[in-house]
Amino acid sequence: MARTYLSPAPLTAAAFAQFGEVIELDPNHLAQDNAVRVMQINEGLTQRYHALASIDSSDEAGRPIISLFHSQAMPMPHRVLELERHPLGSQAFVPLDDAPFYVLVAPAQKTPNTINANDLKLFITNGKQGINFFKNTWHHYQIALGKAGRYIVVDRAGNGENLQLATVQGEVWLKEDLSA
Amino acid sequence: MARTYLSPAPLTAAAFAQFGEVIELDPNHLAQDNAVRVMQINEGLTQRYHALASIDSSDEAGRPIISLFHSQAMPMPHRVLELERHPLGSQAFVPLDDAPFYVLVAPAQKTPNTINANDLKLFITNGKQGINFFKNTWHHYQIALGKAGRYIVVDRAGNGENLQLATVQGEVWLKEDLSA
Repeated sequence: MARTYLSPAPLTAAAFAQFGEVIELDPNHLAQDNAVRVMQINEGLTQRYHALASIDSSDEAGRPIISLFHSQAMPMPHRVLELERHPLGSQAFVPLDDAPFYVLVAPAQKTPNTINANDLKLFITNGKQGINFFKNTWHHYQIALGKAGRYIVVDRAGNGENLQLATVQGEVWLKEDLSA
Repeated sequence: MARTYLSPAPLTAAAFAQFGEVIELDPNHLAQDNAVRVMQINEGLTQRYHALASIDSSDEAGRPIISLFHSQAMPMPHRVLELERHPLGSQAFVPLDDAPFYVLVAPAQKTPNTINANDLKLFITNGKQGINFFKNTWHHYQIALGKAGRYIVVDRAGNGENLQLATVQGEVWLKEDLSA
């Protein structure tokens, strides 16, 4: 079977809308999205970019938590064997180091245990953007590019089965191509 | 009345325990605190420092949200006239730029509308630490030192009165003293 290499697209709020939210402090993005409110607070010293992401964690009495991830760079090329999803809650990643990462997602499937190669969408962040996967969005685990990275992660703790896996059909690979 | 200048103490989880949680990826801190769990995930590529902070937002049907703050440096010296607190939820700040900030807090008071100067505690972060104020912890609004800073903020949206103010007694001032 021939290898398929995925090409990354720049992450934008519009392109990512069906999968989750983009967490960024981007005036251009704000101008395009009237739903984002910027508040002047703290006697004028602070701009609050309000509610860029909503945390979804209350199913089955879950609770929202803040964790830190320290991820080594993904060895490349990397074969994409499976994706995961969290049926009980959202999951947000915000980078603490200025470094792009890959965001590999797929829409919800009617047959949830397999994903077709042409349903995969690969995005690359600009180094400052964070993302919040909606509950049930299929996604690959964190893909740090080139160097290790630290991330704030906001997700759910609690009882219940909050992890499902799906196998990717075909020989799908990632390579690191920051010039794409 | 003579001016009192507060001296900052280094932020540690132990010193901050009555006010909130410290969000940091610090092996020394982990060694001192068995409650913090580090999980190896993502086929060994990622360490998850699990549940460093708990988000408290459900009072009066509130919901947890992620916002971004962009704060200008606090002009110094700065007179501390009042503190605020959020009676309906916690509030976390994690810096996105590697820069120390001041954390000025006071314990809960029996007379909630005034705070004595000697009840104030001033901490300085190491540049990478975040903090999560417990519900009802008196605190000053964000105090960026020397330069503007960006922060992830995780707090509560919803109805209800989630802001109270208290006047600080005396002539209490902050100055920027990163060598302290």
